[in-house]
Amino acid sequence: MAKLMQAVVKPHTAPGAEIREVQVPEFGRNDVLVGVRIASICGTDLHIYEWDRWAQARIHPPLIPGHEFCGEVVAFGEEVTTVKEGDFVSAEMHVACGKCLQCRTGEAHICQNVSIIGVDSNGAFAEYVVIPESNIWKLDPAIPQEYASILDPLGNAVHSVLAGEVVGKTVAITGCGPIGLFAIAVARAAGAAQVFAIEVNHHRRRIAAQMKADWVLDPASDDVPSAIFERTSGLGADIVLEMAGHPQAIRTAFDVVRRGGRISLLGLTSKPVSLNFSEDIIFKGITIQGINGRRMYQTWYEMTALLKAGKLDLRPAITDRIAMKDFSIAMERLKAGEASKILVYPNGTR
Amino acid sequence: MAKLMQAVVKPHTAPGAEIREVQVPEFGRNDVLVGVRIASICGTDLHIYEWDRWAQARIHPPLIPGHEFCGEVVAFGEEVTTVKEGDFVSAEMHVACGKCLQCRTGEAHICQNVSIIGVDSNGAFAEYVVIPESNIWKLDPAIPQEYASILDPLGNAVHSVLAGEVVGKTVAITGCGPIGLFAIAVARAAGAAQVFAIEVNHHRRRIAAQMKADWVLDPASDDVPSAIFERTSGLGADIVLEMAGHPQAIRTAFDVVRRGGRISLLGLTSKPVSLNFSEDIIFKGITIQGINGRRMYQTWYEMTALLKAGKLDLRPAITDRIAMKDFSIAMERLKAGEASKILVYPNGTR
Amino acid sequence: MAKLMQAVVKPHTAPGAEIREVQVPEFGRNDVLVGVRIASICGTDLHIYEWDRWAQARIHPPLIPGHEFCGEVVAFGEEVTTVKEGDFVSAEMHVACGKCLQCRTGEAHICQNVSIIGVDSNGAFAEYVVIPESNIWKLDPAIPQEYASILDPLGNAVHSVLAGEVVGKTVAITGCGPIGLFAIAVARAAGAAQVFAIEVNHHRRRIAAQMKADWVLDPASDDVPSAIFERTSGLGADIVLEMAGHPQAIRTAFDVVRRGGRISLLGLTSKPVSLNFSEDIIFKGITIQGINGRRMYQTWYEMTALLKAGKLDLRPAITDRIAMKDFSIAMERLKAGEASKILVYPNGTR
Amino acid sequence: MAKLMQAVVKPHTAPGAEIREVQVPEFGRNDVLVGVRIASICGTDLHIYEWDRWAQARIHPPLIPGHEFCGEVVAFGEEVTTVKEGDFVSAEMHVACGKCLQCRTGEAHICQNVSIIGVDSNGAFAEYVVIPESNIWKLDPAIPQEYASILDPLGNAVHSVLAGEVVGKTVAITGCGPIGLFAIAVARAAGAAQVFAIEVNHHRRRIAAQMKADWVLDPASDDVPSAIFERTSGLGADIVLEMAGHPQAIRTAFDVVRRGGRISLLGLTSKPVSLNFSEDIIFKGITIQGINGRRMYQTWYEMTALLKAGKLDLRPAITDRIAMKDFSIAMERLKAGEASKILVYPNGTR
Repeated sequence: MAKLMQAVVKPHTAPGAEIREVQVPEFGRNDVLVGVRIASICGTDLHIYEWDRWAQARIHPPLIPGHEFCGEVVAFGEEVTTVKEGDFVSAEMHVACGKCLQCRTGEAHICQNVSIIGVDSNGAFAEYVVIPESNIWKLDPAIPQEYASILDPLGNAVHSVLAGEVVGKTVAITGCGPIGLFAIAVARAAGAAQVFAIEVNHHRRRIAAQMKADWVLDPASDDVPSAIFERTSGLGADIVLEMAGHPQAIRTAFDVVRRGGRISLLGLTSKPVSLNFSEDIIFKGITIQGINGRRMYQTWYEMTALLKAGKLDLRPAITDRIAMKDFSIAMERLKAGEASKILVYPNGTR
Repeated sequence: MAKLMQAVVKPHTAPGAEIREVQVPEFGRNDVLVGVRIASICGTDLHIYEWDRWAQARIHPPLIPGHEFCGEVVAFGEEVTTVKEGDFVSAEMHVACGKCLQCRTGEAHICQNVSIIGVDSNGAFAEYVVIPESNIWKLDPAIPQEYASILDPLGNAVHSVLAGEVVGKTVAITGCGPIGLFAIAVARAAGAAQVFAIEVNHHRRRIAAQMKADWVLDPASDDVPSAIFERTSGLGADIVLEMAGHPQAIRTAFDVVRRGGRISLLGLTSKPVSLNFSEDIIFKGITIQGINGRRMYQTWYEMTALLKAGKLDLRPAITDRIAMKDFSIAMERLKAGEASKILVYPNGTR
Repeated sequence: MAKLMQAVVKPHTAPGAEIREVQVPEFGRNDVLVGVRIASICGTDLHIYEWDRWAQARIHPPLIPGHEFCGEVVAFGEEVTTVKEGDFVSAEMHVACGKCLQCRTGEAHICQNVSIIGVDSNGAFAEYVVIPESNIWKLDPAIPQEYASILDPLGNAVHSVLAGEVVGKTVAITGCGPIGLFAIAVARAAGAAQVFAIEVNHHRRRIAAQMKADWVLDPASDDVPSAIFERTSGLGADIVLEMAGHPQAIRTAFDVVRRGGRISLLGLTSKPVSLNFSEDIIFKGITIQGINGRRMYQTWYEMTALLKAGKLDLRPAITDRIAMKDFSIAMERLKAGEASKILVYPNGTR
Repeated sequence: MAKLMQAVVKPHTAPGAEIREVQVPEFGRNDVLVGVRIASICGTDLHIYEWDRWAQARIHPPLIPGHEFCGEVVAFGEEVTTVKEGDFVSAEMHVACGKCLQCRTGEAHICQNVSIIGVDSNGAFAEYVVIPESNIWKLDPAIPQEYASILDPLGNAVHSVLAGEVVGKTVAITGCGPIGLFAIAVARAAGAAQVFAIEVNHHRRRIAAQMKADWVLDPASDDVPSAIFERTSGLGADIVLEMAGHPQAIRTAFDVVRRGGRISLLGLTSKPVSLNFSEDIIFKGITIQGINGRRMYQTWYEMTALLKAGKLDLRPAITDRIAMKDFSIAMERLKAGEASKILVYPNGTR
């Protein structure tokens, strides 16, 4: 096996990243070394690239970013029992401690001591990545490789949609970044009666329509609440998935949710949000949930089953495929708001 | 309005039924008189017709049977506020007392004092039927009339399928009478990853395939447990919907359910069933549910939403359409096991 | 029976109220006339008395307020079947429409068309009050009369506490008005491992201690978060019941709830509240619930069972007992913050 | 540290056991060596001692039995991070694989590959026992040592009681072995309105009364269903905890559960049980659960919190305390049905 590999490296505490030749990482007794076939880009990677306030506070260069990927098992430590060479795998990149109350009661997705591969340690924008065996997710070869590389954000969508009952319900999704787009497909597969997609960016609205949202609305020109109330006999949406993190989208979420409905919050906010608790929450008797990561490993089983059964068509959301050497081009595409999910090929795009 | 109408009447405590001219029923202050457009036949109607032991204990002739139907509002009592003449409606035929603990805590489907229209009082195999306003279910004209006449058994299926989480799960259905067949469609719409239909009758198996069960098995010739374990990585089915009521089907249900799975029991049994509690239930940590009727009115909202959204294709299960005057022919078809759901037209099939 | 009765009347659109002789109310076919034995005073009654902004928008004088009471059945309409003369009763004063989606799916406490007796129509500060049969709650004579008159606010507490799992959990209650005080008793009865009561008013803190809160904290002088984290191994409270409606209390609620915990909001706010969604909700993966009224009639069964079993000692929270003619004195006591729950006796306190 | 220790050893495939001097067990990199302070005896240990059919099929002598205990950490492997010498601990003795679907979705108590310490490998009737770190449960020194030694069966009781809502409910417990007795205390602490204890053995009934069951019934002389229906307004028990495994007790469970109630099955049966599915399960709309082990580690947190808060008085169920050298006397006491929970002291009872 090679000793050196190509990787995207964030070298310094400053904007940008470089393609470099680095050591293939070493792995421990309980670890698996995976040869990365495809990695995909998350909004978080753009934050790291641009070195914004969040990144400055969290990231310690040098770092290889990247936390969405699929690949093949190349080698593993002596305690590993569940994989063999050549297995096709992805991974949960939130490494939970396994020892806190949350981890020990089925809530590892909100572990008190979580560490994220690709954020807190070297990740998947490289030819090889090291993953603890506990976090490896083996994949049926029937699952398309491209989908296998985006299980992390798909899992966010599955976790959000399935955080309550969905069958026969009206679902409104505010914000159609990749997770919002995936949520359209998941809500449909999970039996939602109608799905509203609400998004300001016209590229994203076009994709939302391709993902088969029943109604695609532009908050800049459409009267979103009226549109929803009209198509729900005046009730409002049973479920709102808030995936924008923008004050106006959040306002819409509370305006359109029906009495007794639920709002699942996933979109991260950068500013405080103001609510009228009496009118917005208490009199309506709604439930609000914070959604973080993916349920370990409930969400992974659910999404694998849906993919294997062919219930999810995610292709419209995959807009770009690039060779890893062109990583900075991908960053520009993302910044321009023209790309949705971008796949990165360490060894070139085929 | 006419004073007389045609109806199927069970006149005596003996097998059979007659088409007779009877009085159009009177209605009270809180009642709705509905002109029946289509009624459909349930296995229960065959029990009444054949005058079996159950019927002898429960039915008090003379009786107009029939508890699945749709029609139009013709008139109503002075306290009725939610319908108007011409409204297209169906109805929940279990009339709950509204006053027992179950009724007052959202469990009216297991009301202590339930009375069933078409069983305990005159039903829908007639030109007109009287329904309390509380039990009327108004329908969007977009819903096909034929489907509107089978909401009662469809509701049984919806109640069974949605009695727990379904998305991404493997569902096995033992017994493919109409409710079992409908459950195939509902499970698919609700996001089941794969649906196994298990049925001895080849007519029903053919329909199960048309309803798009992923796998249709004949317990007489197929090794059902092996087939299920093989396609679930040795786990077994997450959910078993037992809709046969036959000892062998029940045995299969317990054999194929996975550790921690659920068995929802709907098929009525005529004989005691023997189980090994330790092996069948306790060590596997499974949950068993008795399913009765439809949740009032949760199930009705769910099924209406699914129908309106076009998520259910029920046509293969509707095998016969007959004029009410030919009621006894329908009974013969049913006895022969050749028909599945039979629709009855009081005014002819047009 | 008498034709005239004494009542508290809000005569005009202005502050204050009067004791007047008025007609004993007439009742309809489905109604029950109850002779009020004890009525109790809610904060809402003070809003009506003082004619604040909320009252000006909602109340249409003349009105007899009062929505917490117990008494005896005196007479009833011809359709009433479940009570007889002399029955000891209280009532759910939220009259739900029974016809909206919420009512028909077990969520009548958030009915779209609710009307409140004592707010939207004449209430219980009178010798007699009329209640629809559906809302009457018959009481075991074993339940103390004083407790029977405060089932409405006790029900709010029961609904809040039991909106999720409680056994073995740490519960923090922000705000110890009567509902907060009752919640202490309910949380203890429901198996909470420890209960923190947080309240600025020292009268209320004294009562909170008498209700057997494990820890009583004064946010003006105690470091509330430190106190809670210290006694929960640094985890925080599993459950926060927010019953103050004050911005600072709400801030505390979000600060002390543990990752994956729940905040149940009952305290009405008069001003917007600002939150950092990412830190306060999403990363912590918490659930927030709006709590309104009482579950019909789940909550009533639960609270009756607890009372009948003698699991709740509510006496410390009942601070005053007055004759109805002294109603304005009660209002002053309440304004001064010295009284907690005040009982009103239409026929004198004996 | 000593190289040799005293232990109860099942030496051969035959009835009986011996006290022997054996090697102190070796421990691995992830293991903890615990000095046993108290171990307690389970019915399973009697099966092993008597070498019944179950034991013959499952047990491979030589074996040190014992799976309920508490003690102090004496030493540990180099990967262990969460304990230190002298820590007071107990342990979950079901060692789950951590890799099957059940383990990875919060259902490790029904792991497909579980191995039980004291059954499948050497256990706690010895001066020392080896436990994997993952299964160690650290205890607050405030928890009484005697209680710390019976967390395994107490956990069964907690798991059973808390498998559904309990507050304000009527709970019937069929069978008052130690787990049934503990369930009385747990149900009371969890807010049950009334608890019925049903047991044929008069020693056990006496203890059930000491555990403060509201009603203690002898099925040999009392009309159990009548007693329960009378004290539940004819409804029946909301919850039945079946802990006898005897056909008659199971019959009672189904007879007394109310419509919509739940039956949690824990008592292992040795013979098939016959049910009338229609009448016993379906029409009543009940839920039946198989209860196995303890939820890892939800149950452990719940029971620790209840113990620490002083909500459980378990003393009446601890009937005997013996030195380990008198193990066979304990077996006789158990066989005679005179003892309930017996504590075993490896180093004498002091």
